[in-house]
Amino acid sequence: MKHNFGAGPCILPQEVFKDAAAAVLDFNGLSILEVSHRSADFVKVMEEARENVKKALNVPEGYTVLFLQGGASLGFLISAYNFAGKNKKAGYVNTGTWSTKAVKEGKNAGLEVIEIASSEDKGFNYIPELNDIPEDLDFIHYTSNNTIAGTQFKSIPETNIPLICDMSSDIFSQPIDVSKFDLIYAGAQKNLGPAGSTLYIVKDSVLGKSTLDIPTYLDLQVHAKKDSMFNTPPVFSVYVANLNLKYMIKNGGVDAIAKRNEEKAELLYNEIDNNPNFEGTTEVKDRSLMNVTFRLTDDSKKERFDQLWNDGNIVGLKGHRSVGGYRASMYNALEIESVKALVEIMKAL
Amino acid sequence: MKHNFGAGPCILPQEVFKDAAAAVLDFNGLSILEVSHRSADFVKVMEEARENVKKALNVPEGYTVLFLQGGASLGFLISAYNFAGKNKKAGYVNTGTWSTKAVKEGKNAGLEVIEIASSEDKGFNYIPELNDIPEDLDFIHYTSNNTIAGTQFKSIPETNIPLICDMSSDIFSQPIDVSKFDLIYAGAQKNLGPAGSTLYIVKDSVLGKSTLDIPTYLDLQVHAKKDSMFNTPPVFSVYVANLNLKYMIKNGGVDAIAKRNEEKAELLYNEIDNNPNFEGTTEVKDRSLMNVTFRLTDDSKKERFDQLWNDGNIVGLKGHRSVGGYRASMYNALEIESVKALVEIMKAL
Repeated sequence: MKHNFGAGPCILPQEVFKDAAAAVLDFNGLSILEVSHRSADFVKVMEEARENVKKALNVPEGYTVLFLQGGASLGFLISAYNFAGKNKKAGYVNTGTWSTKAVKEGKNAGLEVIEIASSEDKGFNYIPELNDIPEDLDFIHYTSNNTIAGTQFKSIPETNIPLICDMSSDIFSQPIDVSKFDLIYAGAQKNLGPAGSTLYIVKDSVLGKSTLDIPTYLDLQVHAKKDSMFNTPPVFSVYVANLNLKYMIKNGGVDAIAKRNEEKAELLYNEIDNNPNFEGTTEVKDRSLMNVTFRLTDDSKKERFDQLWNDGNIVGLKGHRSVGGYRASMYNALEIESVKALVEIMKAL
Repeated sequence: MKHNFGAGPCILPQEVFKDAAAAVLDFNGLSILEVSHRSADFVKVMEEARENVKKALNVPEGYTVLFLQGGASLGFLISAYNFAGKNKKAGYVNTGTWSTKAVKEGKNAGLEVIEIASSEDKGFNYIPELNDIPEDLDFIHYTSNNTIAGTQFKSIPETNIPLICDMSSDIFSQPIDVSKFDLIYAGAQKNLGPAGSTLYIVKDSVLGKSTLDIPTYLDLQVHAKKDSMFNTPPVFSVYVANLNLKYMIKNGGVDAIAKRNEEKAELLYNEIDNNPNFEGTTEVKDRSLMNVTFRLTDDSKKERFDQLWNDGNIVGLKGHRSVGGYRASMYNALEIESVKALVEIMKAL
């Protein structure tokens, strides 16, 4: 078995892979790939998946859950379009590649964009403080976890301004207080399900309140009114997300997951801090529990280390080109045994 | 085995379902659902899929193939944004629900939209003639096959104006002369692969020529420059589309498919025309080979007919609510045996 530390799609429990494969062959007499999204059988899957998101994250009344397409890349645009208010002015926290892209789409939607905080001065290796927030913003947008830089918000920004969060890479990794947000969105392909669907959790009271004319597919109200079936949804991706949600809930939910994720992160960060061959690349207080970025203190050991982890059946450890070094992504389904295997290899260097 | 006459996602060959299920369990040591889209293994799949589209449709030099997300519903907007020219004026052929939606997104993109032909006067039961086309249009948009109405263009409109076609429901069902088009797009979930990916075949020379500012995800040039990997693609959907393309090519390609589709359509339309219990709902010359719409001549026989086909293991035969009656969708993977089974049941009424 391979230890999958890859940053992108999408380690899931083996049980989920087995059930998904079985449904490709037989889902009530058809393949799940050929079943109509309008059939009673699939409508039930979609409703279950939306309910299980609410259950897993303890979503309060007054929110709608949607499964759309296009990933966070389209989410940047959708969020800006749907939350434009009377000032057409939005605040963005810039913590790296993904928030930079979000800023760009805020502008593309026609908004005045204020960068209310940024960690660009130090190559995005920390989470900036939010001070002096203008009061006339329509919304604040931030990225909870930065897959590339390896940083993560440890608390939700305190504000009375509507709050939007791109949680693509840490949703379902820990409990969250959904009531603090007006919109949460997330590409499925980290902790939820296979690439191809994008989760939206949106406060009902803001639907239809945008001051912009929104193209149809980008309008969350359109999708909400059609119960996430405005057009053909990514059937299989939603089906597998639902399998994973059921697995998650059955196994203790996000509380149990959070505990395991903390254990995994502690194990690896301890090794990085105590092993003279390695150093972390981010500020300690802002370290991501999902994406652990680190490098060698002596680059001459690169060849040997790469050989060791490759021989150890570890995949996906190469750092993003913009940061260099290594990145160990430890999504929910990565077993602690895989982290132990990596730590053993680090000790052996 | 069920006879799947469903209009939406997505009958595929049994061999494709088997190979897809196997890859969910093991694709070079990982599940295809957890493999990184940046891995050499998946980059190869994406390149193969793009090449196999070119091979299957005999796409000439000078076109780029992309797999995006959002279905035709987002394609309506993407096509309008990318093909806006100096007049910001576009011509749409309105042949039913889908082209009506396309018209709406043309307007949402900020274009002046001219309905250059329409069959709305007769409930979209025919394909209108294209006469008196204004010369100052930036592009002409039409829908080649109308899944709901059951009509289909039998030839490509002759014009010097850039031509865009939504081929969602008949692409790969017959050979097409791609050189006549500036853009072809199609939701995968009929003849290509599972719901969740959308195919674009775009003429290179038009990329980057729009007179509109295009949001990033909606800009085809962005995706073309990144070899269809601007953001995380719908990995599994592309993987299965590639399996199906390989199956298609191995079994004689679209020429062989077209022959079989004609046989299937002839069989069913003959029964509709010769059986006094049934009548077609569209003009004979414009009948779709993909979606055969028909109704009972005597509604009192409905209960008995519905019982018969349900007992006969036929699924998906119910007509769309806007047309009523019945609709037999006969995509590539539907075997002629399934059509024979339906015809036997019609004879037995």
